[in-house]
Amino acid sequence: MTLETVSETRCFTGTQGVYRHDSSSTGTPMTFAVYVPDHAEGEKLPVLWWLSGLTCTHENAMTKCAYHKACADLGVILVGPDTSPRGPDLNGDDVPDDEAYDFGQGAGFYVNATQDPWAKHFHMRDYVEQELPAIVAEHFPVDMDRQGISGHSMGGHGALTVSLRNPGRFRSTSAFAPIVSPLNCPWGEKALTGYLGADKAAWREYDACALIEDGARLSDLLVDQGAADNFLEEQLKTHLLEKAVAEAGMNATIRMQDGYDHSYFFVSTFIADHIAWHAERLKA
Amino acid sequence: MTLETVSETRCFTGTQGVYRHDSSSTGTPMTFAVYVPDHAEGEKLPVLWWLSGLTCTHENAMTKCAYHKACADLGVILVGPDTSPRGPDLNGDDVPDDEAYDFGQGAGFYVNATQDPWAKHFHMRDYVEQELPAIVAEHFPVDMDRQGISGHSMGGHGALTVSLRNPGRFRSTSAFAPIVSPLNCPWGEKALTGYLGADKAAWREYDACALIEDGARLSDLLVDQGAADNFLEEQLKTHLLEKAVAEAGMNATIRMQDGYDHSYFFVSTFIADHIAWHAERLKA
Repeated sequence: MTLETVSETRCFTGTQGVYRHDSSSTGTPMTFAVYVPDHAEGEKLPVLWWLSGLTCTHENAMTKCAYHKACADLGVILVGPDTSPRGPDLNGDDVPDDEAYDFGQGAGFYVNATQDPWAKHFHMRDYVEQELPAIVAEHFPVDMDRQGISGHSMGGHGALTVSLRNPGRFRSTSAFAPIVSPLNCPWGEKALTGYLGADKAAWREYDACALIEDGARLSDLLVDQGAADNFLEEQLKTHLLEKAVAEAGMNATIRMQDGYDHSYFFVSTFIADHIAWHAERLKA
Repeated sequence: MTLETVSETRCFTGTQGVYRHDSSSTGTPMTFAVYVPDHAEGEKLPVLWWLSGLTCTHENAMTKCAYHKACADLGVILVGPDTSPRGPDLNGDDVPDDEAYDFGQGAGFYVNATQDPWAKHFHMRDYVEQELPAIVAEHFPVDMDRQGISGHSMGGHGALTVSLRNPGRFRSTSAFAPIVSPLNCPWGEKALTGYLGADKAAWREYDACALIEDGARLSDLLVDQGAADNFLEEQLKTHLLEKAVAEAGMNATIRMQDGYDHSYFFVSTFIADHIAWHAERLKA
């Protein structure tokens, strides 16, 4: 596998890189971002996976999220994948160029699609669970025994579900304004019907609340949710996650943050908190 | 003057607002950003002006510059104007829609243009020196006796020249990767020829080095410049500013920062330093 360096830029005491490669999961080129703090030669650092939300590429978090200082100070590598396959390779397979902001390109929902025309390329679950971790382990100074995962909105959904499905892989899991139950919101209905079909049994492994109901557990969980988030009531439904973790007796801190909305202004406010919380667990 | 609130968003312990108004300086609607930290009722806070660089709107710094935490912690209001007039009002006056990234819309250079078709609308000097300060003083809890100014690239040029031309107005002046002498670089040649005409005598009040040569002084100055900045040699020429302040015996700290480029990754790395430096002087 050839990794192309798109850019490497100094930021705080580390390097923000952008890389591209041909993905076997998606059958397209994929671009991802990696921030590597300065470190001693040969040293391996813990790694935090950051999954982004609807409409985002690999770029949004790296320019808007302001994670660099906390990662640099605490010695944590941050990896930010794109949110879907993109580009001309999709057109030959009848994938529309821009279906909608909440479906198709920029909205992969971290699933392996089974329905046409998405089934051939939209394998973001395989990409973030299998392919990209192997690439990151090969090319960057990461200690894969110390992984954490977080994300925002659709990416919060991704972080929760990837972690719940892979017990023991992540020492720490957090989320910002996650879609906690695609089974129970319009964004989820639309995307999972499109990618997975109408049989909702197939959706449960892509629904954090359903996974917990079905017995999956995290050792710990941190969630921040803006109380002034326009999407809270109809799409995010944090209370369903609160109910699921309570019924499961699962360790979780779910914080409603007064006055904050769904934007990166909210995420950037609390990202240093989250990185410190992850670092505590990754370095324990 | 009516001020339209475009958006107000909570970020750290404060509010990032975006506002629009009809500008008498430019004869167009103008949009600007203001971050107001939480504060006691009736309290007035010091204000830091942030002038942005080529291609930027009011939005780039507020999403990429990561100034919110430092402003909130130190109780400093930050105001970020747009970099030029924009929009349909210009077309009737034969102003091209998108001349180039370094001239015309997004590239006002903080001058009062005297050449057609720019002379009617491109009065960014009046806008940032006179009109916007009056609006900010009227609508926001600012203490206009405690003003600082900073900016990036073309905005660094703006910060230096606005401050040098208005002795005593700003208690603190800093810049990131400023264009220190439009008289001596291609960006300056192109823009000032276009806006001011070929007579370079008219350019001197828009050239930080020339202003210092001609006797203007700042009580103090902080400049950060990335040593890996692609524009350093041809456009920014920090050494000309070093020479001018040395010859003038002017107090200045000009730091070359190894490894950093011209991007907001560089600015965001050092913005908290600058805000702390301004706050010291604004609160003294």
